[in-house]
Amino acid sequence: MNSIGVIGLGLIGGSMAKAISSHSGITVYGSDASEEIVKRAVAEGVLAGRLEDHFADIDALIVALYPTDVVDIILETAPRLKKGCIVIDCTGVKKSICVPLSEKLSDMGLRFIGGHPMAGKEVAGYANASADLFTGASMILCRDEHTDEGAVSEASEFFRSIGFSLIKVTDYDTHDRVIAYTSQLAHIVSSAYIKSSTLEDRYGFSAGSFKDMTRVAKLNEEMWADLFLANESSIVLQIDELVNHLMEFANAIEAGDRDKLVALLRDGRVKKENDELAEERFKKENA
Amino acid sequence: MNSIGVIGLGLIGGSMAKAISSHSGITVYGSDASEEIVKRAVAEGVLAGRLEDHFADIDALIVALYPTDVVDIILETAPRLKKGCIVIDCTGVKKSICVPLSEKLSDMGLRFIGGHPMAGKEVAGYANASADLFTGASMILCRDEHTDEGAVSEASEFFRSIGFSLIKVTDYDTHDRVIAYTSQLAHIVSSAYIKSSTLEDRYGFSAGSFKDMTRVAKLNEEMWADLFLANESSIVLQIDELVNHLMEFANAIEAGDRDKLVALLRDGRVKKENDELAEERFKKENA
Repeated sequence: MNSIGVIGLGLIGGSMAKAISSHSGITVYGSDASEEIVKRAVAEGVLAGRLEDHFADIDALIVALYPTDVVDIILETAPRLKKGCIVIDCTGVKKSICVPLSEKLSDMGLRFIGGHPMAGKEVAGYANASADLFTGASMILCRDEHTDEGAVSEASEFFRSIGFSLIKVTDYDTHDRVIAYTSQLAHIVSSAYIKSSTLEDRYGFSAGSFKDMTRVAKLNEEMWADLFLANESSIVLQIDELVNHLMEFANAIEAGDRDKLVALLRDGRVKKENDELAEERFKKENA
Repeated sequence: MNSIGVIGLGLIGGSMAKAISSHSGITVYGSDASEEIVKRAVAEGVLAGRLEDHFADIDALIVALYPTDVVDIILETAPRLKKGCIVIDCTGVKKSICVPLSEKLSDMGLRFIGGHPMAGKEVAGYANASADLFTGASMILCRDEHTDEGAVSEASEFFRSIGFSLIKVTDYDTHDRVIAYTSQLAHIVSSAYIKSSTLEDRYGFSAGSFKDMTRVAKLNEEMWADLFLANESSIVLQIDELVNHLMEFANAIEAGDRDKLVALLRDGRVKKENDELAEERFKKENA
């Protein structure tokens, strides 16, 4: 790849642009709803210029916009791209993005891959973007029957070159089902956890576990609402499963059933220990 | 204070002994169910000797044992202590410890304070104890009508001198009610979160939020079962409240009610932002 375009220079797109210009020799062009951000990124040397002037040149396009804008903007932009251009979005759900784009872009001679960089921050915008946001993170790529395998290889190599330590290639159904658990549920739990009527009494009574539980309550509510609604059945299933497990604890405690309570806690501890071992193995196998 | 005794040299008691000998000029004596651990701590210079030989000398006694052992061991030890000795436990619940001890020890001429150091690790035992486990942490002290105010002042100064940045003086009912939220609920959520049927598919699909949600699932199930059972009504109330908040999310998502969902998420975000500001103010006021 010689040049890449980035649409949307917020936290994710801005970090992509910064990571590419810092960690690779690839030229980056960018566009954003704010002309000021584009000017700033050019002035900082992150961008080589405005993407609008280079649509026909770029070898790959990365789109990092709000979930509801991604499909429309990609379909608008597609006719201006050269044949064979790789197109990758960064949205946290994948079926609602891949289904309307994959076949259509393939028919236009473009090489679309659904993408999801597993990194973020509690703060948004270009000002918080960083060349190292993705260092050590996992990049998920979703393929289907319209996906160009060469594009997946090129994209994998590219994302590794800008800092990702792991490329997970999967399909959009698996992505949406698993991400409902690993990421979406965590944001809902954080948001629910902070709402306790005991919150305002907590000062002086809390340590790391409270902080960890509530960290991601600080989120962009418009974006996350759309992500949840685009993955409704999976996230509702995860909430239901968690609620059932929480009620097992409540019931054992209310019944004063110590054996049951110890068994529930032991099950959680053993699952966590096995999970850490499995993750280590997975990382070794995919290093 | 010239000398302090520590009963129970596990993670918490061991860290107390190490913190005192590293950060103060106070002599530390210790005892533990394992003679080997005592010998090791003496050899390492953490302890000046076996507590059994010095019960009548010490100015304060710190007890860091399993919740079910604390009251019995303190009552057994009390007659051997000199008048005026400060006695502090380190248990994660307070009413079930303070009620059977406070008046009784006061009548014996001892100065009891219920204690709870807000620090921990996912690993246990003396080998993992550290002189800096409490650095920057909060120490909770519970007083009631039998408490000696001088002892609370002396203890506060002492705990600050070994690294705690904040001393929270409260009563046992407040402690148990708030700790059910800030600490006990977090452990139950972690344990419930790790039990999802999707767990084994998560590799390559997770980032920091999953890690934070499940960190404290690695716990000592025997100890935590007793802590939960000793604080039954408060923890059940917290679980119920969390479940209700989770169900609000599930209902809004299932109904496709975007406005409601945005409002729920915004409420969580605003509460989290205000909470961070309130915590900063609290820390400044109590520095």
